[in-house]
Amino acid sequence: MNVQTVPMLSRRGIICALIALSAPLWTAIARAQSDALPAWNEGPTKQAIIDFVGRVTREHQPDFVPPEQRIAVFDNDGTLWCEQPLYFQAAFAFARVKAMAAQHPEWKQREPFKSFLANDKQAFAAQGEKGLLTLIGAAHSGMTTDAFARSVSDWFAEAKHPRFNRPYNALVYQPMLEVLGYLRANGFKTFIVSGGGVEFMRVWAEKSYGIPPEQVIGSSGVTQFKMGDDGKPVLMKLAKVEFIDDGPGKPSGINRFIGHRPIFAFGNSDGDLQMLQWTTAGMGARFAGLLHHTDAAREYAYDRNSSIGKLDKAMTEATAKQWTVVDMKRDWKVIFPFEK
Amino acid sequence: MNVQTVPMLSRRGIICALIALSAPLWTAIARAQSDALPAWNEGPTKQAIIDFVGRVTREHQPDFVPPEQRIAVFDNDGTLWCEQPLYFQAAFAFARVKAMAAQHPEWKQREPFKSFLANDKQAFAAQGEKGLLTLIGAAHSGMTTDAFARSVSDWFAEAKHPRFNRPYNALVYQPMLEVLGYLRANGFKTFIVSGGGVEFMRVWAEKSYGIPPEQVIGSSGVTQFKMGDDGKPVLMKLAKVEFIDDGPGKPSGINRFIGHRPIFAFGNSDGDLQMLQWTTAGMGARFAGLLHHTDAAREYAYDRNSSIGKLDKAMTEATAKQWTVVDMKRDWKVIFPFEK
Repeated sequence: MNVQTVPMLSRRGIICALIALSAPLWTAIARAQSDALPAWNEGPTKQAIIDFVGRVTREHQPDFVPPEQRIAVFDNDGTLWCEQPLYFQAAFAFARVKAMAAQHPEWKQREPFKSFLANDKQAFAAQGEKGLLTLIGAAHSGMTTDAFARSVSDWFAEAKHPRFNRPYNALVYQPMLEVLGYLRANGFKTFIVSGGGVEFMRVWAEKSYGIPPEQVIGSSGVTQFKMGDDGKPVLMKLAKVEFIDDGPGKPSGINRFIGHRPIFAFGNSDGDLQMLQWTTAGMGARFAGLLHHTDAAREYAYDRNSSIGKLDKAMTEATAKQWTVVDMKRDWKVIFPFEK
Repeated sequence: MNVQTVPMLSRRGIICALIALSAPLWTAIARAQSDALPAWNEGPTKQAIIDFVGRVTREHQPDFVPPEQRIAVFDNDGTLWCEQPLYFQAAFAFARVKAMAAQHPEWKQREPFKSFLANDKQAFAAQGEKGLLTLIGAAHSGMTTDAFARSVSDWFAEAKHPRFNRPYNALVYQPMLEVLGYLRANGFKTFIVSGGGVEFMRVWAEKSYGIPPEQVIGSSGVTQFKMGDDGKPVLMKLAKVEFIDDGPGKPSGINRFIGHRPIFAFGNSDGDLQMLQWTTAGMGARFAGLLHHTDAAREYAYDRNSSIGKLDKAMTEATAKQWTVVDMKRDWKVIFPFEK
């Protein structure tokens, strides 16, 4: 129906017509708003996101949520950007350790650095998880917070993803960028709640996702305040884990950093299960989303048996509780912004 | 000068006149904005706040700071509200331990509870700081985060300050509420960075200060995610300190929670010194404010020798570095909102 076709109606008539038309109008408004998600194929997944946002933003409706409580949380690795073939922060750490090796001649004799630097994969693998964490720790400590931020920026400017041959921060998901923007346009405050390092993500999260540093929650190491020789204070990054923002740590992180319960949460792996449980256990309308990587041709396909981004228990619970599961292959028109 | 007196000027003439008049115009604009601080007496302290806000908000001027970097941090105890004769959170903890005693018959035989509950001040004092911390810990652990928040609300509804005979949250400082509002009206994001417990403050900070939970940073205990018998998860507060947001901990807390350096900081004690150093060490215009309690008649007078809110080293540094020191007696027209 076009307004041009009803020029004879009085103002009162138009209002009556609008009331009569209200149901189709809502559909039309929802459809217009759905243009905020052009990278999503039409279907129940896209519709579930739009329906939820409609429910919590319509004033005087039972599910209305005031803007200050519209908190949305997103996992990062595998939810907002790619996490294969290796968490990108691990790739960063490996590159950093190689770059730092010249300043650490002692590493040539000390494991796990020795086998890593010699590219002896078997000997490095024999160090197990502890060896991996020691390497990652070395890349993330013994420097000021400012120097660390510079090392992250430098890496993003140089490093390329082995399969897509693009800078790592080009591998964010276009459909999820649209969800972030759509939520913010509807009065939501969007947060990252990731197992990744908070200082690693903050360097690029604002530019990539429009999420400012104070809305990025992640794992962290202890920092120590020190007065520099020039009388200017610095924060030194120590090789001591402070907080692991993964699994049951995510609700704790949400409680500590945000201080109220989200109404919308999106993840992709078992590390997000407790965040989704915590979000959906609140009163009123709640949205829980899980991204299922099903597209080996355009990205990757993995779930229950993957060592990275394992999606097993959370998938079972999503099915039981009818959470919204995104089938990447079916639901996404494009994966990365550069495909557009 | 009144525009009515220059009706003959061309548009170009008016523009030229405006440019010529720009200095008095800025003063007039600053004066108009200063009405946002009516509880402050005119003088250099009030002017320093207004001048700083003017400098960082005028576009195309050398000290301009874009809104997303206008981060302002405030200590809470003794800066935004009263902290005498005892930190209010300690008063809460004492009341809680008394209320919880019926559920803990074993406390009658166990120190420091035994002497505290028997009101044996000498024996309790003999337990030292450890006894005090044990008491505070007991009031802040062994319950869910939701139950704790309720206990804080209940206390504020019942408890009264011993001198002012008003609910503790009535004892916020009117001039500081005005500074918070004035900064927000000028595009600042305002944060609390306090040694107090983050979950204690969040219960009332939004209503009292207009600061939402996610902008409250404080000390915290470890929380543990647990699935309840009803299938709903809870966060249990454990008797384990996670982070002390005081002294050198404040820059670490700012780094972890906010992730960029503030341009404006306000405190009142030596526990705020490192936060002020960290804030002022950044590039560009910076504001460091210290509230000096000088008014025993209307509030309290204390500084270098006080066990609560000791202001010694920070006062010396403020003098050396020409930070803005508020003299409560001289600079504040009213102290509390109820005086208006």
